[in-house]
Amino acid sequence: MKPRPRYHEPIVAVSAEPFLVTCLSAVYMEKVCAAEQAFVTLATNDSYARGAMVLGKSLRNHKTSKKLVVLVGPHVSDQSRAVLHKIFDEVRLVDVLDSGDTAHLAMMKRPDLGVTFTKLHCWTLTHYSKCVFMDADTLVVSNIDELFDREELSAAPDPGWPDCFNSGVFVFRPSNETYGKLLQYCTEHGSFDGAKAIFLQPPLGQCARYATFMAPRHSEPILMSLAVSLSVSIEEPIRLLRCEGGDQGVLNGFFSDWATADINKHLPFIYNMSSIAIYTYLPAFKQYGANAKVVHFLGQMKPWSYTYNLTQRTLRGDVQASSQPGFLLQWWALYSAEVLPMLVREYGDQPFISGCEEDAAASEEHVQPLMSSAERKQRWEQGQADYMGIDSFDNIQKKLDVFLK
Amino acid sequence: MKPRPRYHEPIVAVSAEPFLVTCLSAVYMEKVCAAEQAFVTLATNDSYARGAMVLGKSLRNHKTSKKLVVLVGPHVSDQSRAVLHKIFDEVRLVDVLDSGDTAHLAMMKRPDLGVTFTKLHCWTLTHYSKCVFMDADTLVVSNIDELFDREELSAAPDPGWPDCFNSGVFVFRPSNETYGKLLQYCTEHGSFDGAKAIFLQPPLGQCARYATFMAPRHSEPILMSLAVSLSVSIEEPIRLLRCEGGDQGVLNGFFSDWATADINKHLPFIYNMSSIAIYTYLPAFKQYGANAKVVHFLGQMKPWSYTYNLTQRTLRGDVQASSQPGFLLQWWALYSAEVLPMLVREYGDQPFISGCEEDAAASEEHVQPLMSSAERKQRWEQGQADYMGIDSFDNIQKKLDVFLK
Repeated sequence: MKPRPRYHEPIVAVSAEPFLVTCLSAVYMEKVCAAEQAFVTLATNDSYARGAMVLGKSLRNHKTSKKLVVLVGPHVSDQSRAVLHKIFDEVRLVDVLDSGDTAHLAMMKRPDLGVTFTKLHCWTLTHYSKCVFMDADTLVVSNIDELFDREELSAAPDPGWPDCFNSGVFVFRPSNETYGKLLQYCTEHGSFDGAKAIFLQPPLGQCARYATFMAPRHSEPILMSLAVSLSVSIEEPIRLLRCEGGDQGVLNGFFSDWATADINKHLPFIYNMSSIAIYTYLPAFKQYGANAKVVHFLGQMKPWSYTYNLTQRTLRGDVQASSQPGFLLQWWALYSAEVLPMLVREYGDQPFISGCEEDAAASEEHVQPLMSSAERKQRWEQGQADYMGIDSFDNIQKKLDVFLK
Repeated sequence: MKPRPRYHEPIVAVSAEPFLVTCLSAVYMEKVCAAEQAFVTLATNDSYARGAMVLGKSLRNHKTSKKLVVLVGPHVSDQSRAVLHKIFDEVRLVDVLDSGDTAHLAMMKRPDLGVTFTKLHCWTLTHYSKCVFMDADTLVVSNIDELFDREELSAAPDPGWPDCFNSGVFVFRPSNETYGKLLQYCTEHGSFDGAKAIFLQPPLGQCARYATFMAPRHSEPILMSLAVSLSVSIEEPIRLLRCEGGDQGVLNGFFSDWATADINKHLPFIYNMSSIAIYTYLPAFKQYGANAKVVHFLGQMKPWSYTYNLTQRTLRGDVQASSQPGFLLQWWALYSAEVLPMLVREYGDQPFISGCEEDAAASEEHVQPLMSSAERKQRWEQGQADYMGIDSFDNIQKKLDVFLK
């Protein structure tokens, strides 16, 4: 696939002097893109990057006329970034800890809100007049450019507490002023949902549970102590799945009149259809689900947590427990056909987690190479925890028992 | 407690001639009550009647200035009706099958929507200018008379599919014209959620699942075949809990612009707070739950499905799996203190299901008297299924196996 041109390329060709490049680039961005609009997503690691790639492809396939922007965290590999460059118009590195600005200061005060600060960074994309943010675990199944007719802050209700909007899809106006206010709100008020720790309830795994904790994210010892601090985890057979940032709490706190002020800022639920709706209200899903324009793989295993058999075009693992096998397969069909070849090209001979297997490989599924603690941590953070093996509930329970003694 | 006066009582004293009574009564109702407003609920059996009693008491305790009306089905006992008369201003018998009117005709065409037709009957209360309908499984924890400032049809979002409103609490204007249109809509379109069959997922029972079926309600063989028709029920260890009417589907179909038309018709979620919200989005529940004005015991066991220990003021059974133990205990405290004494007075020496036990009785909990099939059916229909015994999942599974052979 031919890479799409990026904005600053013609400017780079004019001069190699860094300062001038920056200035010209800024002027160019300001003039050319001011009236432009963009879909924006966020990839904090290679797993979410795969989600962002599929999302970007799904937007292109449904012929969006808008620009595509992805914010990437420092943990995304060079190869993933290269692929993202081919799908998105703009790939912007966001490293809050390295920024030295107010966001960094805010982060020092509230380390628990790391991903939140990274996401809020989307308000700094002031070379666009209006944007639609979409989480990397969403999939577009229809053209949704009409969302740009809406005003900030438009979003769909969250099924868990429907007077809150879900922050997986929202319309916003980039603005440094709003960005500053959001950072200030963050540091002063935090997020009412801190970070979400999401549990799976075996053996069915259909019931995601949320809990709050305030601690730096992605830290295994903290996940353990978190589990200890929640009475549910001791009495009930659950397993920790992953943690998510608290951006939804911050944004709902900041845009606090969403529920009561303006019906036009309520996006229909089909623009952010939680895939668990099939369990929470099947008749409504049957009635309205076919009209879905955006599917959000919320609160359960992500599409990339499964393994896809390329030969049989089926998913391995507890798919019965999954949110919506049809949408999951749609995600994998797009990934395997249009994203995987690009990843293969970038990685070349180097091994990488593709999430796919072919029939021959399927028989080797129980061969488990030993992992270092660091590798295991990395896999956990990427949503690739070995739920049946070393990260199984039994093993976690053993660790919890140590805490409790 | 002193019985509250009913409207037609002075009229009855004027004349014993039935026709004249009817006319005068109608004139009286028209003149005196035209500008009046009322809370309306519905009791289809003695269990729901107990719910209605607690709801009525909770409204009185929070000093509502509105009238209280309860619609009762023909299966509600005389004793229950007598107690309802003491709490409510108006107790209106609704027997759709006996009515011989358009509702009866509609019912013949759509027998699956039995309870729906009974509920829609509330639109015929034209001697009130505006009403708020509340399901009998709701509990008022604050004065909510301000709901009468809203217009038809105002309701809170349903957490399962938040572009639908939940029909457990809604503001409406009684009108024979609207009633006729609703009946017509029912017979022509049915309800997209037919009747809901609600399952419990053992062993935790925290995950309610909904499914649609179109068949006369409250029929055990149909419940069985329904379970067979749902693939989930065969592969997964669930148990049928109860069925609910399809009024929510009808009302959402009829008032189909609710999600998009007028923000003032979106009641805040705290006016119909699903008690399962604690599981679906705990941080939001912690943030906003304390402001709850109405709790709705939705989608799981009803308060009256438990047994309450009067001595210890605790609930017996799988309360951990319940929606919200605090609100449940609040319901039982009100029931045991203010409703139970009235029931005891009405039933006198006759035995009835109080739902309560004292410490001495607690030791006898495993003594299970044999029940006839009819008694068992009645208990099932009243939400008093013997989940651990004869109605256990294992026993239902055995019956299902017979169907599958």
